[in-house]
Amino acid sequence: MNIDLNADLAEGYGDWRMGDDEALLEVLSSANLACGFHAGDPTIMQRTIRRARDRGVDIGAHVGFPDRQGFGRRPMQLGAEELAALVVYQLGALAGMARANGARVTHMSFHGALGNMAAADRDYAEPLLRAVASFDPSLVVLSSSSVAMESAAAAAGLTVATTFLADRAYDAKRLLVPRRLPGAVIHDHDTVLERVRRLLADGSVVTHDGAVIPMPVRSILVHGDTPGAVSFARAIRAEIEGSGRAVVPLSRQAA
Amino acid sequence: MNIDLNADLAEGYGDWRMGDDEALLEVLSSANLACGFHAGDPTIMQRTIRRARDRGVDIGAHVGFPDRQGFGRRPMQLGAEELAALVVYQLGALAGMARANGARVTHMSFHGALGNMAAADRDYAEPLLRAVASFDPSLVVLSSSSVAMESAAAAAGLTVATTFLADRAYDAKRLLVPRRLPGAVIHDHDTVLERVRRLLADGSVVTHDGAVIPMPVRSILVHGDTPGAVSFARAIRAEIEGSGRAVVPLSRQAA
Amino acid sequence: MNIDLNADLAEGYGDWRMGDDEALLEVLSSANLACGFHAGDPTIMQRTIRRARDRGVDIGAHVGFPDRQGFGRRPMQLGAEELAALVVYQLGALAGMARANGARVTHMSFHGALGNMAAADRDYAEPLLRAVASFDPSLVVLSSSSVAMESAAAAAGLTVATTFLADRAYDAKRLLVPRRLPGAVIHDHDTVLERVRRLLADGSVVTHDGAVIPMPVRSILVHGDTPGAVSFARAIRAEIEGSGRAVVPLSRQAA
Amino acid sequence: MNIDLNADLAEGYGDWRMGDDEALLEVLSSANLACGFHAGDPTIMQRTIRRARDRGVDIGAHVGFPDRQGFGRRPMQLGAEELAALVVYQLGALAGMARANGARVTHMSFHGALGNMAAADRDYAEPLLRAVASFDPSLVVLSSSSVAMESAAAAAGLTVATTFLADRAYDAKRLLVPRRLPGAVIHDHDTVLERVRRLLADGSVVTHDGAVIPMPVRSILVHGDTPGAVSFARAIRAEIEGSGRAVVPLSRQAA
Repeated sequence: MNIDLNADLAEGYGDWRMGDDEALLEVLSSANLACGFHAGDPTIMQRTIRRARDRGVDIGAHVGFPDRQGFGRRPMQLGAEELAALVVYQLGALAGMARANGARVTHMSFHGALGNMAAADRDYAEPLLRAVASFDPSLVVLSSSSVAMESAAAAAGLTVATTFLADRAYDAKRLLVPRRLPGAVIHDHDTVLERVRRLLADGSVVTHDGAVIPMPVRSILVHGDTPGAVSFARAIRAEIEGSGRAVVPLSRQAA
Repeated sequence: MNIDLNADLAEGYGDWRMGDDEALLEVLSSANLACGFHAGDPTIMQRTIRRARDRGVDIGAHVGFPDRQGFGRRPMQLGAEELAALVVYQLGALAGMARANGARVTHMSFHGALGNMAAADRDYAEPLLRAVASFDPSLVVLSSSSVAMESAAAAAGLTVATTFLADRAYDAKRLLVPRRLPGAVIHDHDTVLERVRRLLADGSVVTHDGAVIPMPVRSILVHGDTPGAVSFARAIRAEIEGSGRAVVPLSRQAA
Repeated sequence: MNIDLNADLAEGYGDWRMGDDEALLEVLSSANLACGFHAGDPTIMQRTIRRARDRGVDIGAHVGFPDRQGFGRRPMQLGAEELAALVVYQLGALAGMARANGARVTHMSFHGALGNMAAADRDYAEPLLRAVASFDPSLVVLSSSSVAMESAAAAAGLTVATTFLADRAYDAKRLLVPRRLPGAVIHDHDTVLERVRRLLADGSVVTHDGAVIPMPVRSILVHGDTPGAVSFARAIRAEIEGSGRAVVPLSRQAA
Repeated sequence: MNIDLNADLAEGYGDWRMGDDEALLEVLSSANLACGFHAGDPTIMQRTIRRARDRGVDIGAHVGFPDRQGFGRRPMQLGAEELAALVVYQLGALAGMARANGARVTHMSFHGALGNMAAADRDYAEPLLRAVASFDPSLVVLSSSSVAMESAAAAAGLTVATTFLADRAYDAKRLLVPRRLPGAVIHDHDTVLERVRRLLADGSVVTHDGAVIPMPVRSILVHGDTPGAVSFARAIRAEIEGSGRAVVPLSRQAA
């Protein structure tokens, strides 16, 4: 079986950089590109699209709140009409840039506070996913495991691909433990690699409180904006390949 | 013969409004929508797309500099890579929103300082129009008369439709007299209507310094952000219809 | 007894206007100027400062969330450190512009969602008002009636001046009825004028549910961004003067 | 004789960082803080003010164009009224934050394209410096050597302190060679240190084309946003101290 390895890229803005996108693109099979709202701008989007295209890396839209200063991590209370509009605007902008550069957008995911709110609440997720489907119903929705997202996506006629966040704690419902809680982010690389090995071995994860639960995924997400991110991404890729699997983007995995 | 009547819409931002878009949409055959850089935001773009679609009004992208505070009227010195990226980003965003709402973008034009710089300099216009063509070579480029634009569009494989700015003075080269010069903007409504009548009668315009020159156009532009804009647009429409022509968008004019 | 008449001004941005600031400045004794975060920019701030100075109108800082697109009306979850920083930044910017133009800032108020959150919760108001006091403890805090604000201001050593929002419904605790509830905003001008007359006659207001409660204020706020705002402000001023009072800014009222 | 050692700090924005401000503050005697227009935001300004205050480092305002995406390095054509307004707004914001934190702003400088335009043209510099003087005539203007700046400052009643940019080439008029020209930025650390040594030894600099000219300065500027910036700043400080001088901010240098 193959598995996708993805990260959030194009998170710079103007002269500011975040993460080593070029090096990561050598390791990943998919990239989720910021679309200019919480991070990113047309120039870095264009460059990242071209590099991903040249390396055969899948291009996805990483859609976030319009809050550059807060990096899209602050909850905002926006109406359904505005939410739908900003989802489609970002998807359209990235897809347009991909098209102009001989590439295409294969998937999308929600960033930061927008993603958390959607993963926690089906009523919140539904209009967002209807907006995605109104733009392009063939886009795969990449998400951490969430019944809310899966059911809202099904209602909108969209396919979800679950991605595993190896450095984040899960609860018994397979939801991510919120960042503000202790232990939510696992910083120790050995522990993270051990979690990847377990996932690859038998498709399970150990929850925050010690239970072992199944975690069926087609994809693993690595974070690109931490120190040592590139070498750590390489280590995860080595684990995948050492397990006999290949790193393959969702668009080229057998259904 | 038919003629198009267009204006620049969706120029509000957040709670701020500019022009009476709803009333103008009843008078126009085409609308050029701001795309969120010099004006506009996803919500007003979405609303304006839906209204234009419902009224059979052609939807175009009005592409500008990333300068909301200056309304895109201040020249900015950007590199060719950034210019191409921001043109495609804006086109993609609007086209995506149109697609999600069962509509399509038929044309584009450049706003403010970006438009002036392109109309004055073929070398400046070329990469801009190559960017347009890379996104969608079927987009019609709507422009005031400009040899620079026409020749750059031809090089990029794009069709230009010249639009007549009835309230702006022209020079002997058929270029707009720059706004900062005296007499560049004609405020008297009767004078403007007289210019429209002349154009409709024999396709000519009287230049800034009194010469009569041919002005072959398929379209007339009205400004929507001035006091009395709506009733004035109606008066121009009445002139067109009184001349025996119909107000028809470019996409439905015979080639 | 004298009373202050104030409104929120300088709410334009770039080419966008909101309200007729010049006309209102002829009617008011105090102006609360947006400081460039939820509305306003350096140019309109500078112009409004000069006009207010020339007319002897008190200048206050209207401090809001950093959300121009949402006009500061959307709740944002910001940490205490960031809140303190953005309060002082805005106060400093306006005070600096006043100083450079031979004027001074006499008071401040919180705008929109920031104001609502502070009026409803003493714990939220306290760090905000400590930030105000750290910048200038002589600034008068202008607020709708709120025990939370009054007690937080007292703790910070600041003076509060309560202002009466004639077109907003109050509850039995003298708090504003939230905008989203029916009847929260009173649109009928005659009803609003009747409320002003009652306040001037015996210092009372009729609450949302019909009770009569005392409303001790030194100031009345009018809204400048509604149709007919200027003539309505004049009508309120006429009521004040007809009651034998003078319209006098807080800085010139006897303590 | 003492000399000041300064750098441009607080150039992060939201989650994005630029340079290691904390480490640099241990080496410098003065810091020029971005004020939220080309870089910086209230939070990083507040933190940097507190750290500079605690270390006895002079605080200056680094005033730039309102162009975060372009980092203030793109020329913008703004009118004199807007320029004056944005200069005072930025000075006021920083000075207000300093005041609220028990510190004060001692100096100011112009950043990027705004600085280049002022250094090259006395007519452009004059209204800018009048704006500075209108806010606080005691602010020292820190500038690379420029007759335009010196004469405009004198006209405005302001004191200029010339700072030496050790890694930038100068021409025979003591003006910086524009960045876009070859050799304008000197990347080799040994060459830069040699230039510092010469300056400290006899107050001279070798120009772009080999001439030796006097360069009377009270201050040296180091760049903080390049790799190795901190250790290089330490090396320059060591050169200064090795020459028998002390690193002393302008505010504590004998007049």
